[in-house]
Amino acid sequence: MSKIAVLGAGSWGTALSIVLADNGHDVRLWTHNEVQEENINETHKNEKYLEIMIPEKIIAYSNMKEAISNTDAIVLVVPTKAIREVCQELNSIMTHKPILIHASKGIEPNTFKRVSEMIAEEMNLYSYEDIVVLSGPSHAEEVAMRQPTTVTVASLTSDYAKHAQDLFFNESFRVYTSDDLLGIELGGALKNIIALGAGISDGLGYGDNAKAALITRGLAEITRLGTSLGANPLSFLGLPGVGDLIVTCTSVHSRNWRAGNLLGKGFKLNEVLEQMEMVVEGVRTAKAAYKFAEKEDVDMPITNGIYHVLFHDKQPKEVVEQLMNRTKKEELDDIYHMFKQE
Amino acid sequence: MSKIAVLGAGSWGTALSIVLADNGHDVRLWTHNEVQEENINETHKNEKYLEIMIPEKIIAYSNMKEAISNTDAIVLVVPTKAIREVCQELNSIMTHKPILIHASKGIEPNTFKRVSEMIAEEMNLYSYEDIVVLSGPSHAEEVAMRQPTTVTVASLTSDYAKHAQDLFFNESFRVYTSDDLLGIELGGALKNIIALGAGISDGLGYGDNAKAALITRGLAEITRLGTSLGANPLSFLGLPGVGDLIVTCTSVHSRNWRAGNLLGKGFKLNEVLEQMEMVVEGVRTAKAAYKFAEKEDVDMPITNGIYHVLFHDKQPKEVVEQLMNRTKKEELDDIYHMFKQE
Repeated sequence: MSKIAVLGAGSWGTALSIVLADNGHDVRLWTHNEVQEENINETHKNEKYLEIMIPEKIIAYSNMKEAISNTDAIVLVVPTKAIREVCQELNSIMTHKPILIHASKGIEPNTFKRVSEMIAEEMNLYSYEDIVVLSGPSHAEEVAMRQPTTVTVASLTSDYAKHAQDLFFNESFRVYTSDDLLGIELGGALKNIIALGAGISDGLGYGDNAKAALITRGLAEITRLGTSLGANPLSFLGLPGVGDLIVTCTSVHSRNWRAGNLLGKGFKLNEVLEQMEMVVEGVRTAKAAYKFAEKEDVDMPITNGIYHVLFHDKQPKEVVEQLMNRTKKEELDDIYHMFKQE
Repeated sequence: MSKIAVLGAGSWGTALSIVLADNGHDVRLWTHNEVQEENINETHKNEKYLEIMIPEKIIAYSNMKEAISNTDAIVLVVPTKAIREVCQELNSIMTHKPILIHASKGIEPNTFKRVSEMIAEEMNLYSYEDIVVLSGPSHAEEVAMRQPTTVTVASLTSDYAKHAQDLFFNESFRVYTSDDLLGIELGGALKNIIALGAGISDGLGYGDNAKAALITRGLAEITRLGTSLGANPLSFLGLPGVGDLIVTCTSVHSRNWRAGNLLGKGFKLNEVLEQMEMVVEGVRTAKAAYKFAEKEDVDMPITNGIYHVLFHDKQPKEVVEQLMNRTKKEELDDIYHMFKQE
């Protein structure tokens, strides 16, 4: 059995801690919030995020140094926005080198850096080849309830991916390995943009036919961006791609879908974020992807439309109508052609 | 403007008639049922199937000869089970050769024939190259309400596909063309098997994570079968593939999902079919695909499991658990490998 520190006590960090505790590991769940630390250790619940009881094997810490001491593995599950700051703190206190797995789904605006790249930049002991990402179609609420779930772990170093698989794998939590770190991280992050779009479509009152068309074109759009950067197109067609896209776009559990739904109903971005109370990764990722696509001249009509709804007060209805009417009769099916760019 | 006969007055035939009438065409909607003919012409509603008013331009007929006389196009939208019989009748009365479009999604058990192949076999005037298929993510209810929808028309003869596109294309009904008749027909038919599976998973009380995994593996499974037969893999990644799969697996409008949901809740197939009152194409298609895969030695674990629930009283829970546990830790991600068979 291993000693594992999970850094980040939101819903996903808590759910992954439960998986690890079920597998017999000693889990330290780190939060920067001392009140949350006390609550978890007293009540064995993490009420803001999950309604379920947490195994007593999971001990909460607000002292990062204590949380990580003598660990065999560190699982980083903080919002993308906080990755650099947490890694800087971690870097300043690390004296050993456990396996480092992250499960955050976002991209840094302006730099278009992925989470593994940010980690490698901030940590002296870790290079890009050391990082493992865990991603897939997985609502935290269902994982916490031991509902059947499948995810993928990816690393450039296959031994690290296999080690991560060993830590998490169990009867209800099935873990695949992959070597496409780039594709798995991009798929997990970019799908949140399409989920905002699916929510907007639903919020406007459009039906399942429109949403399916949007999701399908969204899949083509993010696959096109990913493959242009060197990702394996097959990553976008597997669990961490289309699987995660489906779950995020069609479930009321999804924060990004919910945020989009509120936007479609006419709320402004700041009102939506106030109502949500949780991080909506798709908002930052939409900005990152929009800027990158503009700079690199990649055609991303859905991302473009959503960026303008988020940051330039464009009417959602206008964007969805433009997306629908964009394709003239004379055009060939651009989705097929997108995939052909592989 | 064209004279068009739509053969089959179920919900999809009626919805497609509305699209054609909106585009200014004279539409004759044929049904074998004289009572339904009278009702439609008197009330301008087709109450068993759709709640919406039907444009008065749509005239119902129960006499097929009158319905097809002097038509420029025939749209065949009968259940797959009735295709041969309707085509035999049509063949006996046809004296001219309008464009022939079908919008039925199924495969014949035992022969594994697609709808276009059955039509070509039964009709003297038409060969396989003459047939056009219309398919895509499209609930009839939403099309009837002019909700935004995108579909694909495919034919080996591109002029016929373009002709069909011209007839149907409008602001809320966007039509793409394709030359992959095989892939479009297979995708539309086989996705109904996966929808049964998604319904079973939901009926058993599993969550969105499990369903997303099932849909993703289902996509890989039907893509693998399709490409082994020569279909373009890209057809399975576009609107008539993954788009249609998403809409069919995640919507309560979907009959196949609903039938699966009842099976998951413990009803037997005959009880389910009694409750449904409408044709559940996935049941026949599952038998067709199972037998074909067995004969040709294609690995289709989801189809196999669903076939045994449908026809051999296997417990749905047992099947879903087998599918989840099938993948051992040591296996590589078979989904990626499936796509690599392209």
